[in-house]
Order: sequence, then C-alpha cells, then structure tokens
Amino acid sequence: MNVLRKVVGIKDLRDARAALPEPVGFVPTMGFLHEGHLSLVRRAREQSASVIVSIFVNPTQFAPTDDLDAYPRDLERDAALLQEAGADLLWTPTPEIMYPPNFQTWVDVDGLTQPLEGEKRPGHFRGVTTVVTKLFNAVQPQKAFFGQKDAQQAAVIRQMVRDLNMPIEILIQPIVRERDGLAMSSRNTYLNPAERQAALVLSKSLAAAQSAYKKGERNAETLRGMMEEIIKAEPLARLEYVSCADYDTLEELRELTGKSLLSMAVYIGRTRLIDNRVLG
Amino acid sequence: MNVLRKVVGIKDLRDARAALPEPVGFVPTMGFLHEGHLSLVRRAREQSASVIVSIFVNPTQFAPTDDLDAYPRDLERDAALLQEAGADLLWTPTPEIMYPPNFQTWVDVDGLTQPLEGEKRPGHFRGVTTVVTKLFNAVQPQKAFFGQKDAQQAAVIRQMVRDLNMPIEILIQPIVRERDGLAMSSRNTYLNPAERQAALVLSKSLAAAQSAYKKGERNAETLRGMMEEIIKAEPLARLEYVSCADYDTLEELRELTGKSLLSMAVYIGRTRLIDNRVLG
Repeated sequence: MNVLRKVVGIKDLRDARAALPEPVGFVPTMGFLHEGHLSLVRRAREQSASVIVSIFVNPTQFAPTDDLDAYPRDLERDAALLQEAGADLLWTPTPEIMYPPNFQTWVDVDGLTQPLEGEKRPGHFRGVTTVVTKLFNAVQPQKAFFGQKDAQQAAVIRQMVRDLNMPIEILIQPIVRERDGLAMSSRNTYLNPAERQAALVLSKSLAAAQSAYKKGERNAETLRGMMEEIIKAEPLARLEYVSCADYDTLEELRELTGKSLLSMAVYIGRTRLIDNRVLG
Repeated sequence: MNVLRKVVGIKDLRDARAALPEPVGFVPTMGFLHEGHLSLVRRAREQSASVIVSIFVNPTQFAPTDDLDAYPRDLERDAALLQEAGADLLWTPTPEIMYPPNFQTWVDVDGLTQPLEGEKRPGHFRGVTTVVTKLFNAVQPQKAFFGQKDAQQAAVIRQMVRDLNMPIEILIQPIVRERDGLAMSSRNTYLNPAERQAALVLSKSLAAAQSAYKKGERNAETLRGMMEEIIKAEPLARLEYVSCADYDTLEELRELTGKSLLSMAVYIGRTRLIDNRVLG
C-alpha cells in the first residue's frame, strides 16, 4: 500500500513531484473532504501514474462577509482519507506561502464569470482562477480533476486552461449525493437537523424541473418558476437565484434547445448551498 | 551546424519542443530582430541545451492608436539571423491561434504596472502579461530571456512569475546600443535621418544624469530636471515622461539611496522611443 507523503513548502512540493512517475493527476481541494472529493481522488488514481492532492482554504475567493474563518478544517482526518483513497502526495500550503507580501498578480476570466455565482459573489472567481493557476504552476500536473457540483467553476477553469494554453487536461466528475439527494458539500456540516431536512429543496426542485423537461417542457421560465415555487415553499430556505442557462455560455435561456444547465444558490438558515443538473 | 526548425501551430510547437533536450531557453520577441534580440538568443544558447524563439506581434498590447499595423516585419531575415545565432526552433503563431473566438482570460499585475509605461499606455501590460503567460505555457521553458531595454516589462514579468509560481527562471540582459549610444529598437526603423540624430537625446540625457550621480548628486528632482532640459532642447523631441524611481517598486524617488532606475519615453517625430539606465 502506498504511503501518503505530506509537504507544505513549494520547493518541497517541486522536489517530491519531480520524483513521481507521470502522468500526474491533481485534485485541488479546500479540505474537510467528503465522498465528492474522494471520488475525484479515486478517478485520478485510475487515470494517472501519480496522484497529488492540495488542501488550501483560499482566502482570495472569500468575500469579507463570507465564511472563511468558519470554514471547516480537519487535516488529520483528510490525510487518513487520502491515504485510503490512494493519493501519493498531499500539499498543504499556508496563506503566507501562497500570498507573500507584495503579491499583486491576478488571473481573470471575463464573460463566463459574470452571471450566477459571479454576480452574487463579486471577486470570487478572480480568487479561484488565480489560485488554481498558482496550484497548477506549482504542481505541473498532466490532468486535473474538478467536481460538477461547482458547475460554473468547472466551466471557468476549462475556459482559462484553453485561453492560457495550460498543458493540462481538465476532467469534470459527476456530483456525489447523499442517499436522500443532498449534494455533498463541506458546508453541509453547518446545517442543524431541521436545516439538513430543509436543504433537500435544492435537489428536489432540480428533480422536479428535470422531470418536467423529460415530459417535454422546454420553456426556461416555466422551469425556473417551478424550481422557485418549491424553494419558496420551504420556510428555512431563502432563494438567491435559480437559473436555466446554456451549458457552454451560461447565458439564461428562453427555450431549451441544446445542452442546458439548471442551477441555483439557496440559503438554508445562514448556510449558502448550491446545486445543479445538466439537461440534454 | 544546427538547422532552425519552424512551427506555427501550438500542437506542432508542443511536439517539436518535446523532442528537444532540456533545459529549454526561450526568447519571446515581436520580430524584426536586431542585435538586442540576438544577444538574448546567444545568451540563451550559452545557458540552455535548446533554444526556442517566438515571433508574435501581439495585438493585445497595442492600443487602437498605436502602431500595430505599421510594426515592422521581416520573417525571412529574422529566420536567417536566428539560424546564425544558434536557435533550434522558431515559433510564429498567428493572432487567430493566440486569440481564438471567445477568448476571455487575462493576467494582470497590479502595482508595478501603474506608473511609467503603464500610465501612458493603459492596457499595454495586461496584453504583455497575458501573452507571455500563453507563450510560457505553450513553450514550457526552464529559462526565459528578456532585455533590460523594456525595464518595466522585465520587472512586471519577474513579479508575475514569482506571484503565479511559474517554474521558469527569468534572465534580464543588458541594453544593446548603437555605436553612438541609441538603444537598439525595432522602432528605430521609423526614424528619418534627422530624427535618427535627434533620437540621441535619450541616451545623452541618461548619460548626463548618470554622470551627475557619479559626482554625488542624489536629489531625484535635480536628475529628472537635468534630463528634461536636454530633451526639451531638441526641437524634434517631445517628452512623454522622465522618471527617477526605486528599482524594485518603480515608485518615484526624492533621494537616491539604493538601486534606482532612470527611465524615459520620448516621441521623436511620430516615433515613441524608450530608454533607461540603472544606478547604484
């Protein structure tokens, strides 16, 4: 059985990475790992000679009012799970390593970051694309694995890699759900039992819209209205947005003709959750 | 004698690069090569197992009013000079290859791009840092060579490489000058004989300030004033800026205490020229 090696500094990372056989598969995470992350690690294990995982709660993708300080952390448990899932190397840089004094370079994706999460979380994607560029340049993987749970993030990363000629294959893996349908998320840990139950409105409303789609409904406003209604019926839920958008451009649709993305952000109590489904 | 291989597409570049021995030294240029460029290629030849040169007149670093269309080009002559200087591979991507439809990702360096060239040429450095990131990701060199002639560009690239963890060593080479002191530039070709003579005010004013510095002058305003006076005495010259700045931060100085950068941009007729000197 392989032994998980742990590094913190970038030079140690580069040295350890240079000794690993290629292709290198990379799974960037913010830790507090769940089955969604582990499915990425297992997929990377199948498709790569070596697997590197990073855990870094990236401050630049959180707004001042976001949950950066509260974001759950359990490095010891994460390391045990990664060892079990077959990762070779765990990189846990500190904020000081990633953002030294006088740091001043940013990567921006323009169009795809404007709607949905980008509209509700200004600056979020700038933080994501900048840190992912840094992680990629430090790890130099041949493949990188992301979850479909963050659908817009996946689209933004794919666009960035294409636009900047990064020599990396981006593989997007399906959402992993709890038995009752709740999409796995590190933030689910914030939910009290009543909220945990209420959080099912996300997957339920997506399932209802998908079911209507399967029966032939192609009007986007009808599908959005259907999802809204289900969410608004839940007293603990506060809708931030529902969307029925073109899968590639993320522009809101009138009619569903090609591949489409249903997505939403919903506050359950004080916890902000997102979920999505691809149609067509 | 090595034979210069030429590629246009990114896949052809990657294939050719994969066959070259490492370390790979890279010299990105906009072509119309002069001794300044060739000194970079020769230095790369000395310090690398393989040398790749790119020629790409990057539209995104030119403003609409700049000289993009007029920028001089002579690919055949450039290729012959590169063969002679010992380059292994010449990459000449087209604008369509570098900026395909729907391109939307940009790299920005914040602080260092604000003064000097950045102030006078808004958007210029965004174009530079974005294209250099793309060139680096496509070529994947171990070392890259830039000229001190573009002093602020060199500082910005160094900052970007450090901030984004790019695994590339940046080597800055001294300015190459004509016998009479004019810094070599592809844009010198725009000058008519009277302008060519007038263009000496750049190097002359820098030399005067350096001479005063050597005699003990440490007041930045005095040195700036000295350079301004020389430039303003030349009827064909129109001063855009003179600067006496901290070498690392590019902030304007009052007193020269450490390493400092004298720099300037001057229009000679319709041709915009820059030059600089490092003190201390």
